[in-house]
Amino acid sequence: MSKGILQHDVGEQVEKFLLIKSSVKGTASNGKPFLTLILQDQSGEIEAKLWDASEADEKNYSAEKIVKVLGDIQNYRGRNQLRLRQIRPATPTDGVNLSDFLLTAPVSKEEMLSKITQYIFEMKNPNIQRITRHLLKKYQDDFLEFPAATKNHHEFVSGLAYHVVSMLDLAKAIAGLYPSLDKDLLYAGVLLHDLGKVTELSGPISTTYTVEGNLLGHINIMASEIVHAANELGISGEEVVILQHLVLSHHGKAEWGSPKPPLIKEAEILHYIDNIDAKMNMLDRALERVKPGEFTDRVFALDNRAFYKPTFHN
Amino acid sequence: MSKGILQHDVGEQVEKFLLIKSSVKGTASNGKPFLTLILQDQSGEIEAKLWDASEADEKNYSAEKIVKVLGDIQNYRGRNQLRLRQIRPATPTDGVNLSDFLLTAPVSKEEMLSKITQYIFEMKNPNIQRITRHLLKKYQDDFLEFPAATKNHHEFVSGLAYHVVSMLDLAKAIAGLYPSLDKDLLYAGVLLHDLGKVTELSGPISTTYTVEGNLLGHINIMASEIVHAANELGISGEEVVILQHLVLSHHGKAEWGSPKPPLIKEAEILHYIDNIDAKMNMLDRALERVKPGEFTDRVFALDNRAFYKPTFHN
Amino acid sequence: MSKGILQHDVGEQVEKFLLIKSSVKGTASNGKPFLTLILQDQSGEIEAKLWDASEADEKNYSAEKIVKVLGDIQNYRGRNQLRLRQIRPATPTDGVNLSDFLLTAPVSKEEMLSKITQYIFEMKNPNIQRITRHLLKKYQDDFLEFPAATKNHHEFVSGLAYHVVSMLDLAKAIAGLYPSLDKDLLYAGVLLHDLGKVTELSGPISTTYTVEGNLLGHINIMASEIVHAANELGISGEEVVILQHLVLSHHGKAEWGSPKPPLIKEAEILHYIDNIDAKMNMLDRALERVKPGEFTDRVFALDNRAFYKPTFHN
Amino acid sequence: MSKGILQHDVGEQVEKFLLIKSSVKGTASNGKPFLTLILQDQSGEIEAKLWDASEADEKNYSAEKIVKVLGDIQNYRGRNQLRLRQIRPATPTDGVNLSDFLLTAPVSKEEMLSKITQYIFEMKNPNIQRITRHLLKKYQDDFLEFPAATKNHHEFVSGLAYHVVSMLDLAKAIAGLYPSLDKDLLYAGVLLHDLGKVTELSGPISTTYTVEGNLLGHINIMASEIVHAANELGISGEEVVILQHLVLSHHGKAEWGSPKPPLIKEAEILHYIDNIDAKMNMLDRALERVKPGEFTDRVFALDNRAFYKPTFHN
Amino acid sequence: MSKGILQHDVGEQVEKFLLIKSSVKGTASNGKPFLTLILQDQSGEIEAKLWDASEADEKNYSAEKIVKVLGDIQNYRGRNQLRLRQIRPATPTDGVNLSDFLLTAPVSKEEMLSKITQYIFEMKNPNIQRITRHLLKKYQDDFLEFPAATKNHHEFVSGLAYHVVSMLDLAKAIAGLYPSLDKDLLYAGVLLHDLGKVTELSGPISTTYTVEGNLLGHINIMASEIVHAANELGISGEEVVILQHLVLSHHGKAEWGSPKPPLIKEAEILHYIDNIDAKMNMLDRALERVKPGEFTDRVFALDNRAFYKPTFHN
Amino acid sequence: MSKGILQHDVGEQVEKFLLIKSSVKGTASNGKPFLTLILQDQSGEIEAKLWDASEADEKNYSAEKIVKVLGDIQNYRGRNQLRLRQIRPATPTDGVNLSDFLLTAPVSKEEMLSKITQYIFEMKNPNIQRITRHLLKKYQDDFLEFPAATKNHHEFVSGLAYHVVSMLDLAKAIAGLYPSLDKDLLYAGVLLHDLGKVTELSGPISTTYTVEGNLLGHINIMASEIVHAANELGISGEEVVILQHLVLSHHGKAEWGSPKPPLIKEAEILHYIDNIDAKMNMLDRALERVKPGEFTDRVFALDNRAFYKPTFHN
Repeated sequence: MSKGILQHDVGEQVEKFLLIKSSVKGTASNGKPFLTLILQDQSGEIEAKLWDASEADEKNYSAEKIVKVLGDIQNYRGRNQLRLRQIRPATPTDGVNLSDFLLTAPVSKEEMLSKITQYIFEMKNPNIQRITRHLLKKYQDDFLEFPAATKNHHEFVSGLAYHVVSMLDLAKAIAGLYPSLDKDLLYAGVLLHDLGKVTELSGPISTTYTVEGNLLGHINIMASEIVHAANELGISGEEVVILQHLVLSHHGKAEWGSPKPPLIKEAEILHYIDNIDAKMNMLDRALERVKPGEFTDRVFALDNRAFYKPTFHN
Repeated sequence: MSKGILQHDVGEQVEKFLLIKSSVKGTASNGKPFLTLILQDQSGEIEAKLWDASEADEKNYSAEKIVKVLGDIQNYRGRNQLRLRQIRPATPTDGVNLSDFLLTAPVSKEEMLSKITQYIFEMKNPNIQRITRHLLKKYQDDFLEFPAATKNHHEFVSGLAYHVVSMLDLAKAIAGLYPSLDKDLLYAGVLLHDLGKVTELSGPISTTYTVEGNLLGHINIMASEIVHAANELGISGEEVVILQHLVLSHHGKAEWGSPKPPLIKEAEILHYIDNIDAKMNMLDRALERVKPGEFTDRVFALDNRAFYKPTFHN
Repeated sequence: MSKGILQHDVGEQVEKFLLIKSSVKGTASNGKPFLTLILQDQSGEIEAKLWDASEADEKNYSAEKIVKVLGDIQNYRGRNQLRLRQIRPATPTDGVNLSDFLLTAPVSKEEMLSKITQYIFEMKNPNIQRITRHLLKKYQDDFLEFPAATKNHHEFVSGLAYHVVSMLDLAKAIAGLYPSLDKDLLYAGVLLHDLGKVTELSGPISTTYTVEGNLLGHINIMASEIVHAANELGISGEEVVILQHLVLSHHGKAEWGSPKPPLIKEAEILHYIDNIDAKMNMLDRALERVKPGEFTDRVFALDNRAFYKPTFHN
Repeated sequence: MSKGILQHDVGEQVEKFLLIKSSVKGTASNGKPFLTLILQDQSGEIEAKLWDASEADEKNYSAEKIVKVLGDIQNYRGRNQLRLRQIRPATPTDGVNLSDFLLTAPVSKEEMLSKITQYIFEMKNPNIQRITRHLLKKYQDDFLEFPAATKNHHEFVSGLAYHVVSMLDLAKAIAGLYPSLDKDLLYAGVLLHDLGKVTELSGPISTTYTVEGNLLGHINIMASEIVHAANELGISGEEVVILQHLVLSHHGKAEWGSPKPPLIKEAEILHYIDNIDAKMNMLDRALERVKPGEFTDRVFALDNRAFYKPTFHN
Repeated sequence: MSKGILQHDVGEQVEKFLLIKSSVKGTASNGKPFLTLILQDQSGEIEAKLWDASEADEKNYSAEKIVKVLGDIQNYRGRNQLRLRQIRPATPTDGVNLSDFLLTAPVSKEEMLSKITQYIFEMKNPNIQRITRHLLKKYQDDFLEFPAATKNHHEFVSGLAYHVVSMLDLAKAIAGLYPSLDKDLLYAGVLLHDLGKVTELSGPISTTYTVEGNLLGHINIMASEIVHAANELGISGEEVVILQHLVLSHHGKAEWGSPKPPLIKEAEILHYIDNIDAKMNMLDRALERVKPGEFTDRVFALDNRAFYKPTFHN
Repeated sequence: MSKGILQHDVGEQVEKFLLIKSSVKGTASNGKPFLTLILQDQSGEIEAKLWDASEADEKNYSAEKIVKVLGDIQNYRGRNQLRLRQIRPATPTDGVNLSDFLLTAPVSKEEMLSKITQYIFEMKNPNIQRITRHLLKKYQDDFLEFPAATKNHHEFVSGLAYHVVSMLDLAKAIAGLYPSLDKDLLYAGVLLHDLGKVTELSGPISTTYTVEGNLLGHINIMASEIVHAANELGISGEEVVILQHLVLSHHGKAEWGSPKPPLIKEAEILHYIDNIDAKMNMLDRALERVKPGEFTDRVFALDNRAFYKPTFHN
């Protein structure tokens, strides 16, 4: 497989297909229009300027179009840029697809669905099991496609399901070591905690927040959904309250977005499982871009820390 | 009308009926059991010790019983106590009722209900009107009886409805001065914002938090109820999201319990209306206990401030 | 009336008079000087570049000059710019005045003064009335001309008086609903709370902070003025302390700039009245720039929130 | 096995041996001296008053003595007390030992040592392995006896080693799921992170902070020990810095006592492992004292939360 | 000189004169009244109970009376108490005075006044000098008698002047090392910074806050006084603003009570000089009560820290 | 001596030698490469653009090279720039040295060393004296050359030693006024508190943090060094713990980087001495760049305040 756009060094010439993530028109100091393009493949994204842009260029080189480019990697104010020599829209005969340029979870949807089904199957409390299964079914397609966030962690196609499956495995391992934990609650908490994101976010590509997402948030959206599901299924036990509580409290503190802090044991542990998996994802991706003996860029969602890769990690 | 228990000065002898709010058994240094009684009437509450308490005393003088007492007001560590000389349970022939001892809103339920009905009637947006009317109807009896809180403000019988009616009048006055405000949203926000308290709290007497109240909170309980009401009424417009948002955001900030800050204009103003009415209630009650030229006790819910009554306020 | 500069869409050509708010010289990449002009009318401000600027240009196109321009509205990095085709200084025969380009309160000075006079007339406590009237008289001209701030809210000509008059009406409405409030104190607090801004700020145009404003602040400036006024008028009652306290505490908390938190009831309510009026002003102006279904830009002084205009608000 | 002192209900008479944890002399209102005794067994502790205490009583009933008591469980101000009827010092013929009254880890020292030895054996990096083994050897006896804290979590005999062994198992499970983690660093971090507590704390019984503990803290004590150990062993690689960093950063944030936040991946995960194990220990102990459907007392070290035991957890 | 009341150990019998700081009536469990007396001499204060108190006792043993007592030092709940055997009011023939029982600055008023006069004399800027001298003169008597606070630091007779004189010497030493500092501003800042306390506090004995102190605070009181003094003296230079700023900013931050942070160099250094002198006073007094190798009690005003006296400090 | 680069006004032509601090390549809108040079002398630094840069230019004009330039001072976006007319590398015959362009402490190394030696000589406690002398000797060369920080305060050659010497003089003055202070501890604390910076920082030029500096920090590095020194010298008294504590606590609070707050008197005062000297250095340098009547730029390390230079300070 050929190198990704982020894997080239300054000075190299590249010729490849790229997806236009965004295209913004500006006016140069000579008075002529130009386009600032953000181009991406699965390795990441790079900026390029298209000078003296015509009206046709504006149409051809708009967001979500695929293009073929020839250019040089340059450094501008400490960041790489692509200096364009040639650019043309991709044609059907080029045989390239949108999905070739999008970062996707490393496990297939089928495999993830199968794992999730198995975890639900293992549940013993029928109220918990039925509500969880009902909601997963209801949103299954989106759940398997959506990212877990617009940025920070698991922000790729199927990132939400991938995050959930990793958390399920972690929940199982922890419950194995601390047998007083109720596995049904842990698994249900993991499965439902972020499911509201299929309503909060716009979808797997160019992900933004929906109006409902902005005004209500995935936490409250899912809490209401649990009440609704229980009503539809005719379930009324305390499990309905506890499942809502698991979702409401999974951010841990009011200032982190949870209207209630965890007040049952499994809610407290769910918060940690969510954190560990999200942070492992961010750490691995930040560290794979640096060499031993180097620090990563500062990672905003990790309190703006720059992490070190020890020299003996090679 | 005779003086309330809090209106007597140290040294005075009192003879009157009082309600036992709580009764706790202890053991004196001489080894004998005694009861610590909290006695109340509409003016407030006072502590009394019943020494050498028999088993019969324990039964007769338990919480929610009415008693007739003869005793002296004394000061103990800076707080008034009632030193008991005589005590006996009230009998049917005494002609006293529980409601004689409970603080109640200064307006009748009928009057409040009539005002609320009028405000709902004035709404123009049918989606907002129908959802609001539906939920008020559903919880009408409790809504008219519950306090607004277990302590701090409007913590008396019918305090919730009284708080809401005052807020409605305030909302109307403010909307009159700022015509860009949507009155329907303001009124609906006022009516629904604390309605979840009928589920969060246990009832009008000896009010405590329910399990659902502790684990979910009145904010999330009502947000789910709005979704549920909209489903039942077949309403699906953006009003459903906005009404939820009004309830979710009315505490103003995450650290004050709102999972979302106000993001529409009426939500921001609702937060202020709630604050002004709650604070006026707390301030009036703290200040009516002191004379001009004095400071009140510190009021915990007002950032622990002690307020001053100017000498020219008489 | 013709459209304001902010009401044109990208691509439109405009020909109109504008006021130069600021003019900064730079050097282009071709080595030649250019001017970055901020041009304004009552609708707002826009940036324009004047390339190849001569020394004469620098003089002609400096701050507070009026110019006639012909140009096109363009988008540059997400913000509108004016691309200049022609520019010339305004001449006396053009018949344009500075005040045509400045945003001003929607009510005349005379009307505001008349309202304020009426509110002072209604006061019953002579000490409060005399001190308030004395200070308003002393600073009357500036008070009617100054903005309420350099940015955030009411930052236009006569914004200070407009803010105060709106607050007086709000104070009257609230005092009508909560009769325990002392109207004299509320009105005096409203009238004096920001009066120190006529010393803290430089004036109605290109408003900045004075040295006294930076080192003392309008709160302490006015507190000293009240002492001074009382001395001159020979007034010595507790009202002098209370009026100072109203001014000192009106920001509500130490971290918001108040050396004392509100410790009398009217001070607490004054803080809310100030907030509601300031926020309504900010919210209305942010929301009038967006269409239903859109979010505003983030508003720094509103905790950086972006507000939503419901789709049913049209 | 007989019931522990905390497992009796109010009204029950008990006759049993207890350890005096502390004994404080006071003067009753009749002018006579009395002793306030805190008595404990493995189930917890209870207060008792010994009235009319003689000088001999003072000597016989001092801290760390074992006594035989006969008395009744009573409730005083919401907490259980033991009302003494008879008390006498234990004698050699009673056959009771100090260790019968102390809470101890549920696993034997030998078993814990064997597990730890195995984990060190599995390390692959010789620098990490040698430093870790050297320090564990140096403090082995105290490490196997000390509690992990004076209160909050694992505050029992051998609590430190028990906490470490649980964390090792958790580290192993997590490293199994996230193979990019360096197991050597994780295990060494777990083994060393709290080892400074053998210097910070006074010992396994009546644990207090030493002067060195108060002025330096276990974190800095152990960081210096690592430098010292590396010097003695002639090790100078980057591992020495990284091991110090793991210890220094394991509290996660400056305000939680870490002079540096975690800046390598394993340090971040170590912080979570420490938290999960400490919280599981606190949660299990708080919850085992309540019945399904009840809330625990507020737990100070868990942000003062009261946790709920669901009714379906029985 | 005989030992102070705090210098006796538990078990010792004492016979001495003491000042009653406060006297509160209570009711014992036998139903009889008793008095809780706080008795003090220059070494500190101790609690004593006067059982079976008659009405005459209440009058004779009220606050600010001097008494002769015979009694034993006892320990009650970890604090020393005085168990009374005999008590009688002091008579004129006893030859004891109020001042014998009050803690006073270790330097005479005359000496302090002379030093202060000298510092003012050294000032070179006549505006600064005249305003400072005018205000010191105006409040000279109170300034030389008042404490610097009701508690925490320099809370003794003449504590305010003593604090100021120590700060002047410290200011002189620092200005000697950093010659860019303006000595006139530093000295004036030191002399005026707390002068408002003569209005904020009630006086040298049983010191409390006045209404003006509570509602305005010493910082704002003195800022207004500076304006007033400048007006009376006909001074109008920038020095008037700067002197106000020194006073307003000397607490350093808004949350510590300063409406403006220090914005001139001497204001910043004044804040440090104030801190060092206040902390040295608190530290010396806390440490003189403990022996080498011990920790002091927690000192609330020093962030609740307990300080250690090294074993080699003897 | 000729004017420094920062002392020229806009419009002036300059011809002088400058040191290249950094050189970054970019691409102009005409597609040609250019260099952004940061040029410095002892007065400070200025930006310059070298257009149409050849590959030879890139080599000749790289960091730490000295160049001779001819150009004009211009203003670009409010900051001065140097518009280059001519530039050439310095040659040996130019007779210029690196040290001519670096800011250095105003006192010679010899003088500073002699003062430090004298302070150590004055110590009376042999344990404190020997450890301090040993560590100063060990790092003497770097200690006399390193800056005290990468930015903020004393960030110049020999800045660390200069900061320490100023603090020693300040410590002596304060100990003279408060004789209860232990001078040995104060002097040792001053000498050791920042000595770890010779390991934390990279050196006197282009100073950055080392890996050890980032992961451990100068505070912990020096605490370990003290233990090591004591071991080597065979010293074991409490002084070893106290010296570590002085270093560990000198930042004052956990959130400012100290794992322990000051818990001995001299540690508390050391924190203030460090602050005063660092702030005087920052204040003097910020204020010497402005004229009386002006505010400085905002100083980040002084809570982002802009300081005012009074008009009567000339």
